[in-house]
Amino acid sequence: MAMWRAPSAAGQQLGRALASTAAQTSAGSKKVVGVFYKGGEYADKNPNFVGCVDSALGIRGWLESKGHRYIVTDDKEGINCELEKHIEDAHVLITTPFHPAYITAERIKKAKNLELLLTAGVGSDHIDLPAAAAAGLTVAEITGSNTVSVAEDQLMRILLLLRNFLPGHHQIVNGEWNVAGIAHRAYDLEGKTVGTVGAGRIGRLLLQRLKPFNCNLMYHDRVKIDPELEKEIGAKYEEDLDAMLPKCDVVVINMPLTEKTRGMFNKERIAKMKKGVTIVNNARGAIMDTQAVADACASGHVAGYGGDVWFPQPAPKDHPWRYMPNHAMTPHCSGTTIDGQLRYAAGVKDMLDRYFKGEDFPAQNYIVKAGQLASQYQ
Amino acid sequence: MAMWRAPSAAGQQLGRALASTAAQTSAGSKKVVGVFYKGGEYADKNPNFVGCVDSALGIRGWLESKGHRYIVTDDKEGINCELEKHIEDAHVLITTPFHPAYITAERIKKAKNLELLLTAGVGSDHIDLPAAAAAGLTVAEITGSNTVSVAEDQLMRILLLLRNFLPGHHQIVNGEWNVAGIAHRAYDLEGKTVGTVGAGRIGRLLLQRLKPFNCNLMYHDRVKIDPELEKEIGAKYEEDLDAMLPKCDVVVINMPLTEKTRGMFNKERIAKMKKGVTIVNNARGAIMDTQAVADACASGHVAGYGGDVWFPQPAPKDHPWRYMPNHAMTPHCSGTTIDGQLRYAAGVKDMLDRYFKGEDFPAQNYIVKAGQLASQYQ
Repeated sequence: MAMWRAPSAAGQQLGRALASTAAQTSAGSKKVVGVFYKGGEYADKNPNFVGCVDSALGIRGWLESKGHRYIVTDDKEGINCELEKHIEDAHVLITTPFHPAYITAERIKKAKNLELLLTAGVGSDHIDLPAAAAAGLTVAEITGSNTVSVAEDQLMRILLLLRNFLPGHHQIVNGEWNVAGIAHRAYDLEGKTVGTVGAGRIGRLLLQRLKPFNCNLMYHDRVKIDPELEKEIGAKYEEDLDAMLPKCDVVVINMPLTEKTRGMFNKERIAKMKKGVTIVNNARGAIMDTQAVADACASGHVAGYGGDVWFPQPAPKDHPWRYMPNHAMTPHCSGTTIDGQLRYAAGVKDMLDRYFKGEDFPAQNYIVKAGQLASQYQ
Repeated sequence: MAMWRAPSAAGQQLGRALASTAAQTSAGSKKVVGVFYKGGEYADKNPNFVGCVDSALGIRGWLESKGHRYIVTDDKEGINCELEKHIEDAHVLITTPFHPAYITAERIKKAKNLELLLTAGVGSDHIDLPAAAAAGLTVAEITGSNTVSVAEDQLMRILLLLRNFLPGHHQIVNGEWNVAGIAHRAYDLEGKTVGTVGAGRIGRLLLQRLKPFNCNLMYHDRVKIDPELEKEIGAKYEEDLDAMLPKCDVVVINMPLTEKTRGMFNKERIAKMKKGVTIVNNARGAIMDTQAVADACASGHVAGYGGDVWFPQPAPKDHPWRYMPNHAMTPHCSGTTIDGQLRYAAGVKDMLDRYFKGEDFPAQNYIVKAGQLASQYQ
C-alpha cells in the first residue's frame, strides 16, 4: 500500500489532509499539471516527439478517459505564470529537467492538494527536496530512462572537443578552408587519461563506452563500484578527488546537484586540474562556478568545456558560457532524444497508473518517500 | 636489396636511369620535396604541430645534416606553382592527403629524377598510381599511422549527426534557446543498425569502438574478417552491398578511392538506403556523387551527412556540400591530429632512412612496388 502524502510534522503544521489508501487515491478525479518545453513549429514534425508541451507525453487521451484533468504549459516563471495558477489545486505535478519548473518551498506551500511530483527524466534538483519531504510529498523520477542518452552525449562532447571539430565545421559554413586552424590543437582520445567524477548509472555507461578507446580510465565516487564491473571496464578508483584531477586530460562530471555538490568546481578546484584539460558536464550547471569556468576557458587553462546544463534554464542571453572560447554547449537536450522521450513518457504513464491504483513505484524511482530523501540527495 | 625505380617498359620509353642498388641510392645528395598544408598563424602554437609546411614533419635538420636538400611548399596547383618548379629534379616527393598534391601522369613524366613517392598519412589516390607503376616508381604510405584517429572521428560524426548536436550549438552561439528544435530529430545511437562499407583497418577499429553502444553492427567487404574478431565485435557480414544498405540507419564509408569505388554512391545507390539514413564518409569525397549527396540531404532522404573528405581539396567556396542541410563537414582533418602527425612524421623519417640505406620498407606500407599496385588499389 503506497502513501502519497506521508504524515510529517511539517505536513501536520500545514494542516494538509493525507491521501493514504488505494481506495482514496483512485476514488476521485485528479488534477495533473505538466510543465514541458514548447514544441512550436517542431511539434508536428515527428509522431514520436512526445516530450514537448504540445504532445504532453502522449498521455492526454488515457488520462482524460479515466476522468482526470490534465493541464500542460511551458509557462513556469514568475507569480503570474500558468504554473502558479494551476499549482494551487493540482494533485500531481509532472516536471522535466529540460525545462525545469523550479518548485520552491513557496510553491509547495501554495500547492495545498499536491501529493505527487514526477520528474519526466532523471534529476529532481529543480525541486526543493527537503521542503517536499517536510510537506510529506512523494517525489519520483524515471530512473535509468535516459542514462544511455546522456552517456552517449558525453562521449560525443569529449571527442568533438579533443578533436577540435567545431572550428573546422565553422570554416566550412563560412566558405573557408584552413587545416592548420584545426590540426594545431586536435588530439586523439586514445592514450589520454579520462576521469569521471561520479560513477553512478551514467558514469558507468560512459566508462563502458570508453573502454575500446584505449584510454587510461579513472573514477572518483563515494564508493567503489562492483569489483567485477571495475575489472571489466579497467577503471581505477580514486578515493581523493583532488588527487585525481591533476592526472586527467579529460574530466567528466557525473554527480547529482545537491547542497554538497553545488559550486563544487570553483576557481581553486579548476586550478588543480591539468593545464589544457577538457571538461564535460551534462550533470547540472550549478555544480560549476559559472564565472570560474568562463575565466579558465578564456585563460586557456581549460582547453575546452562542453555540456548541456546551465543555471538557470533557459540560459539568459548574457550567460558567460555562451561567449567563452572553445565551448561545445547546447541547450539542455542530451536526455531528451526521441528514444529518451519515449522511455520517460512510458515511465510517467506507468507511475501515474500505479498512483491511481495505490501501488508502490519501482524502488529506485523514489527521490522523496515518506519524508526521506534518496541516498544520492542526502 | 630495395629497388626504388623498377625497370619497366614505360620507364625505358622515358629513357630514365635506374637507381637500383643501395650503393647508388645512398651515394649522392638527394632532393626531397614535401607538399603540406600551411601552418600560418598556427605554426608556432604547438611544438608538436609537425604536419604543416612550416614544421615540415620536423625532419629538416636530420635531412640537411645528411647532405640532402629539402624543399617544402603548400603551392601545388597550376603549371606555375612551386611544386611544378621543383618536381623536375626531385628524387623524393612527400605528399599528404590533407592537402593533396595531385600527382598526375603529366607530372610524373616531368619528374625525370623521381624515384620515391611517400604519402604522409594513409591513402595515395591523389597519385596516378598506374602511371607511377608504369614509370617504375615506388609509392609508399604510413599504413596504420592515423587509422585510430579516423575511426574516432567517424564515431564522433555518427553521434553528433544522430543526436542533432549542431543546431543546438548554433542556438547557444546565436543567443537562442529552443530544446524542441533539437529534440524533435535527436536519437540515441543505441539500438540502431550501423553498417560499414569496407572493413579494413579503419572499419574494424570503428566496429570495435561501436561494440559497447549496443547497436546492430554490419559490414560489407570483399572478404570476411577473421572469425574470431568477427565474433568479438559481433558484426554481421553482408556479402551483397545493395542488400545491406536498406537495413542501415547509419552507413559509414571505409574504402579506398579506386577506379572501382569512384562515384560508387550515386543517386541510385543512395535511393536504396533507408529514408532518414545518416552517412559518414571520412574515406574520400570522390567515392560519392557530389550532387546526389546534396540532393538527398535537401530532400530529407539522407537525414545527415558528415565527413572531412571532398573532391577537390581544398573544397571550392561553391562546393554544394558546404550549403546542404544537416551536414557535419570539416576540412580534411581527421587523420591529422597532433597524435596522428607525430606518428606519420616518424613513419616518413623511418622510410627515408631506409631509402637512403637501400633497405626495404615494411611490406604493408607499399602502394606501388616494382610496377605492381597494392591489392586494395587493384
